[in-house]
Amino acid sequence: MNSDLILLGHGSGGTLSHQLLEELLIPALSGEGLAGRNDAAVLSLDGRRLAFTTDSYVVDPIFFPGGCIGDLAVNGTVNDLAMMGATPLWLSAGMIIEEGFSRKELAAIAAAMREAADRAGVRIVTGDTKVVPRGTADRIFINTSGIGVINHDRDIDGTRARPGDRIIINGTIGDHGIAVMAAREGLDLETGVQSDCAALNGLVAELLAATGGAVHVLRDPTRGGVATTVKEIALQSRVDIDLDEAALPLTSGVKGVCAILGLDPLYVANEGKLIAFVDADRAADVLGVMRRHPLGIDAAVIGEVTATGTGKVRMRTAVGGLRGVEMLAGEQLPRIC
Amino acid sequence: MNSDLILLGHGSGGTLSHQLLEELLIPALSGEGLAGRNDAAVLSLDGRRLAFTTDSYVVDPIFFPGGCIGDLAVNGTVNDLAMMGATPLWLSAGMIIEEGFSRKELAAIAAAMREAADRAGVRIVTGDTKVVPRGTADRIFINTSGIGVINHDRDIDGTRARPGDRIIINGTIGDHGIAVMAAREGLDLETGVQSDCAALNGLVAELLAATGGAVHVLRDPTRGGVATTVKEIALQSRVDIDLDEAALPLTSGVKGVCAILGLDPLYVANEGKLIAFVDADRAADVLGVMRRHPLGIDAAVIGEVTATGTGKVRMRTAVGGLRGVEMLAGEQLPRIC
Repeated sequence: MNSDLILLGHGSGGTLSHQLLEELLIPALSGEGLAGRNDAAVLSLDGRRLAFTTDSYVVDPIFFPGGCIGDLAVNGTVNDLAMMGATPLWLSAGMIIEEGFSRKELAAIAAAMREAADRAGVRIVTGDTKVVPRGTADRIFINTSGIGVINHDRDIDGTRARPGDRIIINGTIGDHGIAVMAAREGLDLETGVQSDCAALNGLVAELLAATGGAVHVLRDPTRGGVATTVKEIALQSRVDIDLDEAALPLTSGVKGVCAILGLDPLYVANEGKLIAFVDADRAADVLGVMRRHPLGIDAAVIGEVTATGTGKVRMRTAVGGLRGVEMLAGEQLPRIC
Repeated sequence: MNSDLILLGHGSGGTLSHQLLEELLIPALSGEGLAGRNDAAVLSLDGRRLAFTTDSYVVDPIFFPGGCIGDLAVNGTVNDLAMMGATPLWLSAGMIIEEGFSRKELAAIAAAMREAADRAGVRIVTGDTKVVPRGTADRIFINTSGIGVINHDRDIDGTRARPGDRIIINGTIGDHGIAVMAAREGLDLETGVQSDCAALNGLVAELLAATGGAVHVLRDPTRGGVATTVKEIALQSRVDIDLDEAALPLTSGVKGVCAILGLDPLYVANEGKLIAFVDADRAADVLGVMRRHPLGIDAAVIGEVTATGTGKVRMRTAVGGLRGVEMLAGEQLPRIC
């Protein structure tokens, strides 16, 4: 392994990604407002708070059960804004297309983007299209950047988890990653697993309206999965966390594929899930709001913040043991989003 | 030529790009705010006008005389905001990196981005990094999106050219395209041509402060060059335009390479140039402001709007003839920005 080269794992969302960001990209690019470990930057304009985020989507295959690169690109960026407690308003669409790509597929992807934008209540207001010679990109990559407004004065970010907080997820884990992987390997018909790709801004708006300041942190466990996301927040907030394996919502389809392939669903990407850190005494309310929303029917409390600390995350296993949880090391499934 | 496939020319910025946008992408993606033919979308937030734009950069080679993909990505997006009369504030940086890319080159590119951002007075506030397997992208692609504020109540956009307007450019044409092409072909040492890559927001701010409402349209002639940009504006504003070949500022280096290779500099990309459409009676003032600015020393009046019309553009040639000017057809130099 040559440390002078960029490796696939640098794009995993896990340990190597964090190293690359901390050692190279953040120091090099950073102004004081750099989002760093949060999903979006929070910016101030005339006393009004804006959220601004960007994501490039390179998923392979570009069409998979439950979605395609188009709605993924819209929902993913909408979610990054929603995780800062912002109301997403406007998106950009920057496409890099390989020469020879099918116009029909491009049209289908654009239609999926528009449909996802309409469903999320955002508008795609500006765009850019580049075409590169055959063999210099793989079909299509899409960047979406997004702007939202923060219409309240609460701070929701990764540094605000505190001892006692309950950790709640809005549903089953690993669906997106397993759906994409199965499609890539031609197994999609057999597994029946669908991506959970969805916009979470509606659910977040209801959560914040109903439970306000009880929500301390929101984050969507995409690349690197629930394990990496919880570990990130533990480190950002300097707290220790216990997760409860038996409480993790999981479909039998995802469970089955993970068992066969030796994958840990805790590290598999999600695209319609959020993890909320909430006041213990409001956890039941948050759970209630989620379960009444179509995207939160399977919501569950999956753990709690045990103490201030050094960012230690442990899993209480189904058989009662405790094991340490670290970020994703290396790359489990490249090009998952 | 199979019309079901995306061709290199669809990314040229010329005729095919416009067709793809008009026939497929704009109708599919569009909300009412879609920037369409303008460089950025203008959005309203609490009565405050924001500009929002996105661009992906796929230039080959990634380092070229006068710049690299990093400063190009910052300056290009800063310029798109400035062309709407906005003050650029914040940028995002979305990188797609090929597995095996050099960390050292990545660091150099990030440093160039930061330096360009500092020089332009903008901050890179959020980012994203994806790594794709070897052979599925060519080294590095960078998307930058940007937000600016419009601190005045004038409308500067491509629909506002009017009969009598003088057309002014801030300097020599074709430098960026020829520099990149020469570097790609290994001719850079011989030609000595440098990219003009630069942020134009400072020049625009001075222009607007000094000459205010006299400036009707600003646009940077990037892909497709001066010819395509002027034709675009003629069509958007429904006016006819005459350009004056003898007035076009051109270095001997660019002239020489174009002559040898049979390229028309009018179609070659620029990255530190703007075309301004201004009131005839203020043209001398605009020219004066430009020429006192380091990025406008070679500014020149290169044509005028002759009448309302159908978007006809003609070139008065050096020998006194008139020839029609159309948008770039096909693709002259792929991956120029």
